Amino acid sequence: MSDTMMLVQEVAPRDGLQIEAAWVETAEKIALVNALSEAGFSRIEVSSFVSPKAVPALRDAAEVFSGIRRRPGTVYVALIPNPKGAERALAAGVDEINLVASVSETHNRANMGMSPDDSIAGFSRIMETVKGASVLTNATVATAFGCPFEGDQPVDKVVAQVERYRALGITGITLADTTGMANPRQVERLVARVLEIVPAEHLTLHFHNTRGVGLANVLAAWQVGARRFDAALGGLGGCPFAPGATGNICTEDLVSMAHEMGIRTGLDLPALIALSRDLPRLVGHEVPGQVAKAGRPCDLHPVPRAA
Amino acid sequence: MSDTMMLVQEVAPRDGLQIEAAWVETAEKIALVNALSEAGFSRIEVSSFVSPKAVPALRDAAEVFSGIRRRPGTVYVALIPNPKGAERALAAGVDEINLVASVSETHNRANMGMSPDDSIAGFSRIMETVKGASVLTNATVATAFGCPFEGDQPVDKVVAQVERYRALGITGITLADTTGMANPRQVERLVARVLEIVPAEHLTLHFHNTRGVGLANVLAAWQVGARRFDAALGGLGGCPFAPGATGNICTEDLVSMAHEMGIRTGLDLPALIALSRDLPRLVGHEVPGQVAKAGRPCDLHPVPRAA
Repeated sequence: MSDTMMLVQEVAPRDGLQIEAAWVETAEKIALVNALSEAGFSRIEVSSFVSPKAVPALRDAAEVFSGIRRRPGTVYVALIPNPKGAERALAAGVDEINLVASVSETHNRANMGMSPDDSIAGFSRIMETVKGASVLTNATVATAFGCPFEGDQPVDKVVAQVERYRALGITGITLADTTGMANPRQVERLVARVLEIVPAEHLTLHFHNTRGVGLANVLAAWQVGARRFDAALGGLGGCPFAPGATGNICTEDLVSMAHEMGIRTGLDLPALIALSRDLPRLVGHEVPGQVAKAGRPCDLHPVPRAA
Repeated sequence: MSDTMMLVQEVAPRDGLQIEAAWVETAEKIALVNALSEAGFSRIEVSSFVSPKAVPALRDAAEVFSGIRRRPGTVYVALIPNPKGAERALAAGVDEINLVASVSETHNRANMGMSPDDSIAGFSRIMETVKGASVLTNATVATAFGCPFEGDQPVDKVVAQVERYRALGITGITLADTTGMANPRQVERLVARVLEIVPAEHLTLHFHNTRGVGLANVLAAWQVGARRFDAALGGLGGCPFAPGATGNICTEDLVSMAHEMGIRTGLDLPALIALSRDLPRLVGHEVPGQVAKAGRPCDLHPVPRAA
């Protein structure tokens, strides 16, 4: 992976839409994913094969996967909570499954109804299920930068969980700042440590901008060698513990920062801005992204006429 | 200046309030500055001695200065556009005057109605005016990271302007990203260059979060040795070219990031959060700051009851 290339995985269709109160029509979701493909993403997290009762907003995961136009070279990802979800994902022709367990016992119990150990035992059964299928695998360490119930999580515990994922044969690893608690110094340390055991081309950083520090965390991770980042168009995503706070780091803000720094992403920023400006219509409220409001730094303004 | 100490200058009363449409009562401004003093700021930009016609929101600058309680050790700053403003500031007992000229010819003409050369000639007259008075001096290079009309500004031109300020005997220098066009790589380069001629204890970085990159720019500046930053409570400030975009970097978000990184600020973050939460009442609209909505990372949440 080039030193001047950043891989941005778009997660708005999954992590963004999953907490939206208003139902987004399946056809709209398909159109969004298609437009994201055309904007140049090599990875899109499309939906989640979770219980429709748990996440009603994504109950049409299979329909979305069957409806999208697949751009050659783009990996279409789905979040998978359990072996049953993995079977549904395989049937839907998902390119990559993303498994999630929190490093925090309390958060995993609250979120998944079981201990992290039981979640990871489930991963083992999922890996059995997908054996032989041509599907890529990724697993996420949620609350890697802090748990909203427990607080800080020890680095050694996060690293141990990454090692357990790798021992199961899972290729991709995501460190997730699930509720936006990370800071740049912590990011620097944890990412440097995990890069000792996971190559940069397989490590994704998933930051939320809950406390405004999302892009500073990206910068810190980039500086120690991370090259892959999740982001959501418009900064969709939110946080159940922080009503009114921003969600995932915003794709077009991230891409604008990268391009301004001379880092390539392969993405069509004006297309992303246009898509982001359409989000309020889709989700029924304003979204936090800034570049869609302000334009790119290179979008100059006419000189005001002298008074 | 300690390696682990960040100096945050609060600018909400000036850069924040100056673009607010609703009139904020003088007594409210005084109460805000007093509360900021109590929260621990060693520097507060209180108001601006500009023409009341140009900036009606700050037409009560003298009354505010005469009404505030001065905390020993805190420097109360005013923005000054011309020699007449300097005289008014001296009469009001301002501790430090802050002069501003853009490096961009076009921006300075649009903003100040004259060339940067004429602005700097005015600084010279102002320095004559304040000679012998016990007032500190600072001058700002506006649009140092880009002009919304002209685009990029050459580093050499910015450095030359800094040198002209210093040659006039002005102690403090501020590099301002007036409309939020900076990126971390550019910040790193320009700040490193200016730190060769201005010591860190006299160099302030003034970033706007117009494109979501404000705190990443702070991080980049900090890493090359900058230690002083302007910020506005709640992220007040806005940008006339980007309706709906965020304003100055948000004080409590910056302070939260710093504290989480182990960098001291001497500021009372819970007090800042409480003050920020009161801003919508003061200015009549929501403000962009995130930590006031989400709480500090260490503010943990109760574990949800099992279903």
